Amino acid sequence: MKKYDAVIIGGSIGGMVSAITCRRHYPEKSILLIRKEEHALVPCGIPYIFGTVGSVDKNFLPEPVYDKNKVEVMIDEVTDIDPGARCLSTAKGEEMVYDKLVVATGSTPIVPPIPGVDKKNVFAGKKDVFHLQEFLDKLKVTSDLVIVGGGFIGVEFADECKKSRAINVKIVEMLPHCLMLAYDEDLCIVAESVLKERGIDILTSQKVEVLLGNDNVDRVKLASGEELKADAVFLGIGATPDTTLAKKAGLEIGPTKSMQVNRYMQTSDENIFACGDCTEKVSFFDGKPSNLKLGAPASMEARIVGANLFEIRRANRGVIGVFSTALGPNCFAVAGLTERAAKEKGYNIVIGEAEAINRHPGGMPEAEKMKVKLVFEKGTGIILGGQISGAKSGGELINAVSACIYNEMTADDIAIFQMGTQPALTASPIFYQLVNAAEEAVIQL
Amino acid sequence: MKKYDAVIIGGSIGGMVSAITCRRHYPEKSILLIRKEEHALVPCGIPYIFGTVGSVDKNFLPEPVYDKNKVEVMIDEVTDIDPGARCLSTAKGEEMVYDKLVVATGSTPIVPPIPGVDKKNVFAGKKDVFHLQEFLDKLKVTSDLVIVGGGFIGVEFADECKKSRAINVKIVEMLPHCLMLAYDEDLCIVAESVLKERGIDILTSQKVEVLLGNDNVDRVKLASGEELKADAVFLGIGATPDTTLAKKAGLEIGPTKSMQVNRYMQTSDENIFACGDCTEKVSFFDGKPSNLKLGAPASMEARIVGANLFEIRRANRGVIGVFSTALGPNCFAVAGLTERAAKEKGYNIVIGEAEAINRHPGGMPEAEKMKVKLVFEKGTGIILGGQISGAKSGGELINAVSACIYNEMTADDIAIFQMGTQPALTASPIFYQLVNAAEEAVIQL
Repeated sequence: MKKYDAVIIGGSIGGMVSAITCRRHYPEKSILLIRKEEHALVPCGIPYIFGTVGSVDKNFLPEPVYDKNKVEVMIDEVTDIDPGARCLSTAKGEEMVYDKLVVATGSTPIVPPIPGVDKKNVFAGKKDVFHLQEFLDKLKVTSDLVIVGGGFIGVEFADECKKSRAINVKIVEMLPHCLMLAYDEDLCIVAESVLKERGIDILTSQKVEVLLGNDNVDRVKLASGEELKADAVFLGIGATPDTTLAKKAGLEIGPTKSMQVNRYMQTSDENIFACGDCTEKVSFFDGKPSNLKLGAPASMEARIVGANLFEIRRANRGVIGVFSTALGPNCFAVAGLTERAAKEKGYNIVIGEAEAINRHPGGMPEAEKMKVKLVFEKGTGIILGGQISGAKSGGELINAVSACIYNEMTADDIAIFQMGTQPALTASPIFYQLVNAAEEAVIQL
Repeated sequence: MKKYDAVIIGGSIGGMVSAITCRRHYPEKSILLIRKEEHALVPCGIPYIFGTVGSVDKNFLPEPVYDKNKVEVMIDEVTDIDPGARCLSTAKGEEMVYDKLVVATGSTPIVPPIPGVDKKNVFAGKKDVFHLQEFLDKLKVTSDLVIVGGGFIGVEFADECKKSRAINVKIVEMLPHCLMLAYDEDLCIVAESVLKERGIDILTSQKVEVLLGNDNVDRVKLASGEELKADAVFLGIGATPDTTLAKKAGLEIGPTKSMQVNRYMQTSDENIFACGDCTEKVSFFDGKPSNLKLGAPASMEARIVGANLFEIRRANRGVIGVFSTALGPNCFAVAGLTERAAKEKGYNIVIGEAEAINRHPGGMPEAEKMKVKLVFEKGTGIILGGQISGAKSGGELINAVSACIYNEMTADDIAIFQMGTQPALTASPIFYQLVNAAEEAVIQL
């Protein structure tokens, strides 16, 4: 039976980054990565297949990485793990022995139990080339697309599907606003207005009751009784962890139905590690279970896994939750707790906000507004979160906010933050949004 | 005699931000700002007057800020400070009493003692509307411009003056590369190649011996004997602190010939504060004197001054040194110590570098390369500095690096940094430059 020092199950971000990191830290170890997919996709790039990027094959993860890092890749499906024997078996009948194992099986889009959801032309954004190609082909003959769910996936798909296609796109969202689980209401309203300007219809506080039609979906009926014309329906509801294999192997499952891990990313079997969407996460702020499922935290966890496989070198302090989206020319980004999330967790808070042009003087080209909103704990002054809307450079500024959160900086620290400013690149040192938002908060602490 | 709670001398960044911050922290205090200039200029915007922005009046600091913050502004020149009586007198014969005083008199461009430097058509980039307008008018009839000094000011002026003008622009730099005091050699070489592509001639390791001509300069003679044709010469040599007033008042002057201050930004007279280019700075890293003269540190110091005027609330931990420039579509940014500066300070160091496309997948629009180079202390693993070249979003990513430095994060901390990534905004979570550069360093520590 073949034996590897490290076997990694899963070829998306968690798997790939575990493999690269393991190689960097342990140059002599043999590494095998097993994945089901012939072609692994950039997960966060999937919405862009349907507009900006334009084809499924332009959204593949780069395969040369594996050769470069001397990682063997096998296209197959692991069907069983025997933790006692440290042995795996696969759908194609292979068997192999591992010293350390990484489970990075990811997640699957949720298909909600709505009547009619099994009709043709209902798509869920699965990380599967054929499924995505089918949706892309269908869009060529679609006049009316209904998107169920106005979270990140829903709004990004809506925006991309609308691009360079004369089709009607409607988003149906249960909550009062799109993106409401990600941002505070003020940002959601701005994001909705950008989507509306781009010709997307938004129906909020609305529930889908049934998908109507014969074989093919042709209408979406809402709980309100309203019926929406639909040649195609996209489900952007969220994702559920893929833990079939872990359960079968008897590994412990945690409160969010993901694989339970300790702070070193070890599962209930110390030789089996897990990372990414299939793995339990805890909040950086209070250690409570977190439902976050995203590529960037998966890569962070995978860097812990890869480093820890043969010697414990790193610990996971919990997820801060840093993410962004781009709608038209606008960036919407968040790090840590929103105002609402902080209140729900029982924090006493203070808010600081600052808006400024992203260049200086204002007559510089590409000058756009950018607004920063920061949430601090009252009393301690420690930063809990930040949200940015406006210019695209907010996509990197949010990472400065993330660093402030990780280091538990106070509003006073951030008010005297040492930023670099430059006329063609940022706001002026006088009105720089991050420090001015902090200064606004300081005087309320 | 009129009495104010706070009087601020100087209307550039240090003065303006001191005034705004004082108002935020002390809503009831009376504040007077006295400045010489009818129109105060955005200092870092000055090079852009000569290209992108196109006129001097589009580069004024926003005056409505003063009304909004209830700050009285007086256009006059303070000629004497009497620290004992806490009294000021001005060129126009005014006298007034202060409770707290801020001196933010800034700096003046260095005019080196080169023979012929007093000829007509030799300009120095003074923060003076008439001087800048004269240079702008002269450029209309200039065929050959020679810029002496290839630091930030020199290269930004060169790039802007060349824009939309059919003129020959030459930079003469004493050191082996332009920007050598700011960046490591590898970045300097990239920056020089961008300037050359844009049609700018660069003469390095060359010293100007004499400016030739009758009344008007018409040639620049180098120490090598070479003569350069020149209708106009621009001096981008650096700046010297403006401390005339401080010296007259008997305030202590420090090792870089600037006003000495303690960590609360108080001068040798506890009721007189100073900030900005006229003020001594110490390095964040070793507390040694620093020559840094820039708008962003001036604003940081001014936020300490404004908060401390009537009660000590903040302390200055020393300057990290964070700055950037944009040449064509490229950003060049630095935070903290370069590799060379760290070695000069006696650190044992480890370097980590990572380059990646600034979008993901690589087929996304606006995809550009961005490279991050990080400097860590060997052994402790603490970050000492970072440099970024490539895509413009580096202008904000450098501020995440600044936050890492301020908090003395280690390479291991940064390797598991929790960044937000998004296809249209950043590199992918797999290849994100900041964490990959740190990971490269970790394995060498």
